Amino acid sequence: MSSAVHSTEEYDMDIRSLSSSRSHPQDPPYVHKVGLPPKQNLFKEFKATVKETFFADDPLRSFKDQTRSKKFILGLQAIFPILEWGRNYSFVKFRGDLIAGLTIASLCIPQDIGYAKLANLDPQYGLYSSFVPPLIYAFMGSSRDIAIGPVAVVSLLLGTLLQNEIADPVANAAEYRRLAFTATFFAGITQVSLGFLRLGFLIDFLSHAAIVGFMGGAAITIALQQLKGFLGIKKFTKKTDIVSVMHSWNWQTIVIGASLLSFLLFAKYIGKKNSKLFWVPAIGPLISVILSTFFVYITRADKNGVQIVNHIEKGINPSSVNQLYFSGDHLLKGARIGIVAGMIALTEAIAIGRTFAAMKDYQLDGNKEMVALGTMNIVGSMASCYVATGSFSRSAVNYMSGCQTAVSNIVMSIVVFLTLQFMTPLFKYTPNAVLSAIIISAVVGLVDFDAAYLIWKIDKFDFVACVGAFFGVVFASVEIGLLIAVSISFFKLLLQVTRPRTAILGNIPRTTVYRNILQYPDATKVPGVLIVRVDSAIYFSNSNYIKERILRWLTDEEELVNKSGHQNIQFLIVEMSPVTDIDTSGIHAMEELYRSLQKREIQLVLANPGPVVIDKLHASDLAQQIGEDKIFLTVANAVAACSPKLLSDV
Amino acid sequence: MSSAVHSTEEYDMDIRSLSSSRSHPQDPPYVHKVGLPPKQNLFKEFKATVKETFFADDPLRSFKDQTRSKKFILGLQAIFPILEWGRNYSFVKFRGDLIAGLTIASLCIPQDIGYAKLANLDPQYGLYSSFVPPLIYAFMGSSRDIAIGPVAVVSLLLGTLLQNEIADPVANAAEYRRLAFTATFFAGITQVSLGFLRLGFLIDFLSHAAIVGFMGGAAITIALQQLKGFLGIKKFTKKTDIVSVMHSWNWQTIVIGASLLSFLLFAKYIGKKNSKLFWVPAIGPLISVILSTFFVYITRADKNGVQIVNHIEKGINPSSVNQLYFSGDHLLKGARIGIVAGMIALTEAIAIGRTFAAMKDYQLDGNKEMVALGTMNIVGSMASCYVATGSFSRSAVNYMSGCQTAVSNIVMSIVVFLTLQFMTPLFKYTPNAVLSAIIISAVVGLVDFDAAYLIWKIDKFDFVACVGAFFGVVFASVEIGLLIAVSISFFKLLLQVTRPRTAILGNIPRTTVYRNILQYPDATKVPGVLIVRVDSAIYFSNSNYIKERILRWLTDEEELVNKSGHQNIQFLIVEMSPVTDIDTSGIHAMEELYRSLQKREIQLVLANPGPVVIDKLHASDLAQQIGEDKIFLTVANAVAACSPKLLSDV
Repeated sequence: MSSAVHSTEEYDMDIRSLSSSRSHPQDPPYVHKVGLPPKQNLFKEFKATVKETFFADDPLRSFKDQTRSKKFILGLQAIFPILEWGRNYSFVKFRGDLIAGLTIASLCIPQDIGYAKLANLDPQYGLYSSFVPPLIYAFMGSSRDIAIGPVAVVSLLLGTLLQNEIADPVANAAEYRRLAFTATFFAGITQVSLGFLRLGFLIDFLSHAAIVGFMGGAAITIALQQLKGFLGIKKFTKKTDIVSVMHSWNWQTIVIGASLLSFLLFAKYIGKKNSKLFWVPAIGPLISVILSTFFVYITRADKNGVQIVNHIEKGINPSSVNQLYFSGDHLLKGARIGIVAGMIALTEAIAIGRTFAAMKDYQLDGNKEMVALGTMNIVGSMASCYVATGSFSRSAVNYMSGCQTAVSNIVMSIVVFLTLQFMTPLFKYTPNAVLSAIIISAVVGLVDFDAAYLIWKIDKFDFVACVGAFFGVVFASVEIGLLIAVSISFFKLLLQVTRPRTAILGNIPRTTVYRNILQYPDATKVPGVLIVRVDSAIYFSNSNYIKERILRWLTDEEELVNKSGHQNIQFLIVEMSPVTDIDTSGIHAMEELYRSLQKREIQLVLANPGPVVIDKLHASDLAQQIGEDKIFLTVANAVAACSPKLLSDV
Repeated sequence: MSSAVHSTEEYDMDIRSLSSSRSHPQDPPYVHKVGLPPKQNLFKEFKATVKETFFADDPLRSFKDQTRSKKFILGLQAIFPILEWGRNYSFVKFRGDLIAGLTIASLCIPQDIGYAKLANLDPQYGLYSSFVPPLIYAFMGSSRDIAIGPVAVVSLLLGTLLQNEIADPVANAAEYRRLAFTATFFAGITQVSLGFLRLGFLIDFLSHAAIVGFMGGAAITIALQQLKGFLGIKKFTKKTDIVSVMHSWNWQTIVIGASLLSFLLFAKYIGKKNSKLFWVPAIGPLISVILSTFFVYITRADKNGVQIVNHIEKGINPSSVNQLYFSGDHLLKGARIGIVAGMIALTEAIAIGRTFAAMKDYQLDGNKEMVALGTMNIVGSMASCYVATGSFSRSAVNYMSGCQTAVSNIVMSIVVFLTLQFMTPLFKYTPNAVLSAIIISAVVGLVDFDAAYLIWKIDKFDFVACVGAFFGVVFASVEIGLLIAVSISFFKLLLQVTRPRTAILGNIPRTTVYRNILQYPDATKVPGVLIVRVDSAIYFSNSNYIKERILRWLTDEEELVNKSGHQNIQFLIVEMSPVTDIDTSGIHAMEELYRSLQKREIQLVLANPGPVVIDKLHASDLAQQIGEDKIFLTVANAVAACSPKLLSDV
């Protein structure tokens, strides 16, 4: 017999069956015992759990076995990654960063002016937020591709939440601004705390599907809002007849807006079709700003009702340290808004960071990243910035323009600085319609039909979360949408822990492998034996369900057996491979199962309990109760052990 | 070759190894393909999920294929199980029920009077609650062993919550009482709703460990409170010198209390030692009431400062329909208190019901049970009852006295009726100290050291929840204790879904089985191949962690390999048996893992993806990306397929 057969004995023998072992009951097969893991002491166990929960990435790994001075340098480098990658910085890299930085600067300046309006702030605050935060991020952040600054969704969210507290942001501009800075401060504090306390995994509770829906909904809301500016309507008239509506419109604005939007969308289309032309959509906004500003200046269209930016404060960020609310009612409001905005901003930034890190295959330390983003917002809040984070669209442009390191953010920051210092008067005649067109063309990219379709294909429940978040944002508000997204995500997790799957296993022909009979229709049941697999840890939240589900499988099977006149069920094998843990409620449920089976004269047999489970089965004496000889390494072993006993009853 | 060898080929061949397959690379082994489950349509899938979530027990099973009139009868029987079991009721059963009913009646009457005081209500309200609710439960409930009435913990909880709203239950007795009835009404509504909406699984979110801790803490709190009555102290004196304290005591009360408590505890001890004498602790309370009442009446000890019950309203429950608050502030307060008290009462009743159902091996329908308990509380709230539920101690006595059906509750109810109608004046001289002694001796049983020790042995985390709930109740309040218990339970579930276990697998010698190398130290790794098992569904909450954890295993392994100079890792096999589900975030994480591995020139191989996973791998095209030929039925198959390829690189 060749050894090739030996190597494949798991699947190549079709004569193997239960009957064969029945004919040789005197040959006890070699059975490897179920391993009992080495006893751990309590402290070690606790330490391991804490480490895996909060320090899963082993952040201190590189500090091991180092001298004290080396540790200090490593510590500094951990806080300021620029000290690490900066040493290998070269001219070639700088060339890439310079081009990328200039490109994203041209994109961010008009976007910033528009986004500030979404947050109900004056245009310069958008620019401020593209000056200080990117600088700080460049020193502390570990992503090489992210582009920092204000983003559409966070601006909208912040604007909505702030307006809930201060109804009229124009009349109470100073108070509104102070609350915005306070919220920014607490957004930063939230981000730093999550990173420092290593609670970064909390943002994982917003599922991908919920984010897709939320972003899409926010994009639609923003786009609809911008239509107002786009059509030149100050306030929608209450008269609904077409003439009144037409009167309130301004045809010059519509022409400017529509043509520029067409131009921008066409530029986007070109960039999408040919990835070498990625720079076309990247510089499109700047070109349209220049063209439209020049056009308005020449024609003085502003005198005919075309609304213009008019004034952007000249000079760089003034200090806003004294403007933060550190007491009273506004402190609480600011903190509440900041926590929400900070979490959303974080979710966006981490998602971007991870995406590009995976594309270039470098590691991104989520917790360190949060500390960097938080610090930049805390400092920002003291320099008249509002919440900044990573922008999807600008980061993609940054990546495609060939950025190498965070230096591209420094370049962008310098350009914004120069703009603030010298060029704000040039924006006087910039029509608001062009800003609306830029925002619309930027946010349409957030409506991700492909992703939604993929979600639909993969997971219907996820799709419900996605659609729920989308409609919540569109028809209610950003907060409601967010709440729906989080609730549905949580409900799904609860479902997972209360209603785990169970499966009936059968033997796959010509193997000793036992698999779900629904997945493998050719798998055959073993007469007299019911094999059930439990697909989850057995915890208080599902222990009763699992017990009752197993008993129900048994009842169903016994009915079938009675109808067909086959052999009665005498063994219930529970395949426990997927059962990673069991708690006291679970042990009690297993005990109750064991007792119910005893009443029915059915033997309980366990297959492959994992290390934690076998440990607890012994600790609770349940292993002894069931019988050590009823616990096997594999289902095949268990079946082999049951079948000779079945024989005697036939 | 004998067929016995065939039957056990999975474990009995020690010559099988990778080298053997290398020597015959031209023999492709028979490999069973990974099954793709039959495509289900969306509606079916949705229906299956809803059914498994809300109708896991298939309540309409017996209604299938029945005539309409039969269905009507079955429906009636479903609502009133007494119609079903009543038909087989016999004199033998009644004898058991009669004895059990009389026993629990003798136990419940003194307990009821005491428990009413815990809820800050007059004694008769405790008796009222042992008259109407048990009657209704007997018709609608499906447990045969539960004894219904007021219980210590719920009385304490209700009293505490009500006193938060109405500080002085004596001065505002009428208002307090009305709020109590309103809370009872909403407790009933909550219970019926949970049962009717089939949300019964929500009570599973309070873990066994948390309940043990909560009950123990509540018992200690109650016992300490009773010490006041026991020592005859009206108000603890503020002077701390021993003389003032002694002065405020009443030695007669102490003598009565201490001797009766000793008697009751001794009776308990006897009952525990010899289970045939279970009736000794059962009738102990009644005897001590009779004795102490007679003693006080003879000695007129009440004139010497021994506090007595004095007055219990004669006659059965008056209607309280008009007393429920159905509007205003009190409606909300009552609803809030009712929801909490209703949930706790439910938890207790269901736990009792399940315990005894498992002992006698009959099925208990949790949702139906909730409807019965809820209805009895709704009706109770209209008949001057406060929240009733199943009592641990009385149900145990009921069971041991040989109860057969819920008729024992009817017997008890009739005895309580007779007591209310004719015997309340007899309690005039009953000293409060005896009630305190009865309550203390009843609640000490709730401090379950054995259970706590078992929890400690089995699961340290559960023990934290248990101790947290205990200290929360003792040192803060029942609500805080409850909150701690629920929070810790939830935190544990979150941990489960964010930080699932992963394991490195090795080959168990002389088998083709691959198991966790930590559990099986003799398992050997396959050179050039890293085998990782993921022990959980891959969801948004853990997808990033799993991806990064696998990459970290890989980095660790590569370091080891580099040090030892072994073969480089060329294959990463992910054993997916325990991965029961994957969502869109999970698919994205797997995609990122695949891409990272590509960069490192390592091939990703999957073993045994389940039906849902393989379905989604195909839906997302990830299966094609990885390659259908990289997905195997078992780890052994995967290793066998990898090893010839490894050969060529050596």
